[in-house]
Amino acid sequence: MIWNEEAECMSREDIKEIQLKKLQNAVKKAYENVPYYNKKYTKLGVFPEDIGTLEDIAKLPFTTKDDLRESYPFGMFAVPPKKIVEVHSSSGTTGKPVVSGYTRKDLDNWSELMARGLNMMGVGEDDIIQNTHGYGLFTGGFGIHYGAQKVGSIVVPISTGQTRRQIEIMKDFGTTAMIFTPSYGLYLAEVAKEEGIDPKSIGLKAIGFGAEMWTEEMRKKIQDQFRAPAFNIYGLTELMGPGVAVECSSQNGLHISEDYFLPEIIDPNNGNKLDEGQKGELILTNLEREGMPIIRFRTKDITALHYEKCDCGRCFVKMDRITGRTDDMIKVKGVAIFPSQIEKTLLKIDNVEPHYQIIVSRPHLLDEIEVKVEASPDIFFDEVKEMVNIKKKIEDYIENEIGLRVKVSLIEPKSIPRSEGKAVRVIDKRDLH
Amino acid sequence: MIWNEEAECMSREDIKEIQLKKLQNAVKKAYENVPYYNKKYTKLGVFPEDIGTLEDIAKLPFTTKDDLRESYPFGMFAVPPKKIVEVHSSSGTTGKPVVSGYTRKDLDNWSELMARGLNMMGVGEDDIIQNTHGYGLFTGGFGIHYGAQKVGSIVVPISTGQTRRQIEIMKDFGTTAMIFTPSYGLYLAEVAKEEGIDPKSIGLKAIGFGAEMWTEEMRKKIQDQFRAPAFNIYGLTELMGPGVAVECSSQNGLHISEDYFLPEIIDPNNGNKLDEGQKGELILTNLEREGMPIIRFRTKDITALHYEKCDCGRCFVKMDRITGRTDDMIKVKGVAIFPSQIEKTLLKIDNVEPHYQIIVSRPHLLDEIEVKVEASPDIFFDEVKEMVNIKKKIEDYIENEIGLRVKVSLIEPKSIPRSEGKAVRVIDKRDLH
Repeated sequence: MIWNEEAECMSREDIKEIQLKKLQNAVKKAYENVPYYNKKYTKLGVFPEDIGTLEDIAKLPFTTKDDLRESYPFGMFAVPPKKIVEVHSSSGTTGKPVVSGYTRKDLDNWSELMARGLNMMGVGEDDIIQNTHGYGLFTGGFGIHYGAQKVGSIVVPISTGQTRRQIEIMKDFGTTAMIFTPSYGLYLAEVAKEEGIDPKSIGLKAIGFGAEMWTEEMRKKIQDQFRAPAFNIYGLTELMGPGVAVECSSQNGLHISEDYFLPEIIDPNNGNKLDEGQKGELILTNLEREGMPIIRFRTKDITALHYEKCDCGRCFVKMDRITGRTDDMIKVKGVAIFPSQIEKTLLKIDNVEPHYQIIVSRPHLLDEIEVKVEASPDIFFDEVKEMVNIKKKIEDYIENEIGLRVKVSLIEPKSIPRSEGKAVRVIDKRDLH
Repeated sequence: MIWNEEAECMSREDIKEIQLKKLQNAVKKAYENVPYYNKKYTKLGVFPEDIGTLEDIAKLPFTTKDDLRESYPFGMFAVPPKKIVEVHSSSGTTGKPVVSGYTRKDLDNWSELMARGLNMMGVGEDDIIQNTHGYGLFTGGFGIHYGAQKVGSIVVPISTGQTRRQIEIMKDFGTTAMIFTPSYGLYLAEVAKEEGIDPKSIGLKAIGFGAEMWTEEMRKKIQDQFRAPAFNIYGLTELMGPGVAVECSSQNGLHISEDYFLPEIIDPNNGNKLDEGQKGELILTNLEREGMPIIRFRTKDITALHYEKCDCGRCFVKMDRITGRTDDMIKVKGVAIFPSQIEKTLLKIDNVEPHYQIIVSRPHLLDEIEVKVEASPDIFFDEVKEMVNIKKKIEDYIENEIGLRVKVSLIEPKSIPRSEGKAVRVIDKRDLH
């Protein structure tokens, strides 16, 4: 089931040709219609006609979330208000919100993107999609909604909350596809079982994950609970919303619709382009956005790109599941480290718990990292030698993962403070300012 | 500003001709595709070919909310699931919910209806509509949303809640049209003033009221607060959603889109048709609904129809603002009485408060009504004669309004229990079962 075979299965050459043409047009429009780009490009002495190849995109400066905030509310719009038909917005919890404006054509394109995505998940016109994403200024709900309408499936726009009603409706309506965040999915399964309903009995065909980071263990658990495959949906309000990239039946990466977005991976520290397969920060450029063309947006999401042809038949590049955010990154001795790398290592080692804290300090001009790890409560270390062995083993594993030797301390079970929200994983004691 | 002049300004003759053709088609489709109608019509011996004139609709039975509930979830759908693209639903707080199914064409029609409505309110493609109605299974949010998209204005789908953010966005985005329930509108104005923002300074052009009953006093207050005209929007999930009827610049009734709906007014007690201008229960028939054609739906809403040509130039019939529900109706000595009639009377009389309770009893085989009314706390009735005079005055006024003599008791201020939610206005002590 491929929604738009002509687009999704075109050759790399055709993709590049289309991308170049669209990129040139997008940069020109941004330069001509958005004061932000006009000023910035003029100052840097870089102009639309400098884009002769796709690689020339590197000449253009990045656009950051802060840039978008500073243009609040409508400063990034490239068309007169009359042409805008809908706006969405980020939550603005950490500053002025980012406002995203859509023309009628942008909404059509958004629908097309998510229609492709639903087909990737195996969802088509015979399906009943229960959309638990919130509607409102948040793009989550609407992206799925517009895609479902395009595909011609039945959309049940139930939105978030009312968990018992969600379950009743899944059962009564014969829902075949659920859209939820992984954590809400696990909660739904739990409540269903409390109500005496086996989530497997609902007969879901597919699950779409969005708006949250997750692990393969979580996917496995949810797939087991509902006996249905779960697919990753990626998107950002700044660029469009859900549908920028979606996972196909191969479940090993998300196809980015390259006729709408030009992806790059950079080293977040110096902005240099990284090669295929290398992990770095995802940069996205809108190739066909009328209302608000975003050129070289720093997503802060960490991933890698893979260009080999996919088993599903689609030719669009695949990005890995997002495994971190540059916000979470610590730079130590010039090396970028993510807490998730430490976590991954700890999960491989017996006798320790995945409760840890990374303490970065600079005692003698040089950076030092200490990783405090809780020992498992089941184990009593009476042998000093045994403790030393485990410590050494963790240090070896971490060095292998991040390329740096760190100091590991094994500490008592439950001695790291538990958090209600996001756990505090990193304590940076360096005075970096 | 008339969205669809050809439709909205056609002659009564043309309307009738179109309605008859569409009615015949709708009844035929319902009969052929929905088992509920098929069984019911067959049992009554009435068939699509019996509809030779518009008046013949009276041969058909009514459809009630209970009928729709019994067909939960999809029993009223007239097309295969494949043709349905969206479903909405009532809240189901008092039983199984009613599910409403839409084909793609139904959604287009819904958009058209609400586009007409927005134009009636003076809202067009240059406007920024902030939609505080909830999105989800509820039709309120989506009806406005689809209409706004059709009109080409900017829709800000902010949904309910986040009052401070609503105010910030009104100010920052330069919102020109607000959609809210009257009570939420008053609350918004109050919070804005707390934040030091005069609601008048926002520069609204229009306000759309929905999803709640209101009084002309409330409208006046809201219009004063925001210095903008407020228009009534009427709709039901069962028939479509908001947009069934909307108020025009004349602000004295709502135009029903008669090319989509056939309205009738009946006496709720016997089902007989009432004449133009007579207050009774509104009956609506979907003339052009593919997904779920509803024939002669008992809305339980009390209103009257007026066919004279409107100052705004539109020719569609106008219905009065809904002033009650048949649910609220008390039948006493064969006469239908609404608490709102009593309330209206009390508002005309000094020295009493609009806090009242209607007690219906049947002490000696005959119904009796007692109306308990709180005296104003400012007045001290030391003269028995004065009290008797006021009592008599109220009794006269009520008799004039409802046609029945009731017993009025003046009671102490604050002696009627206050309610957090809906006030308890009627206590029926009769054993009617």
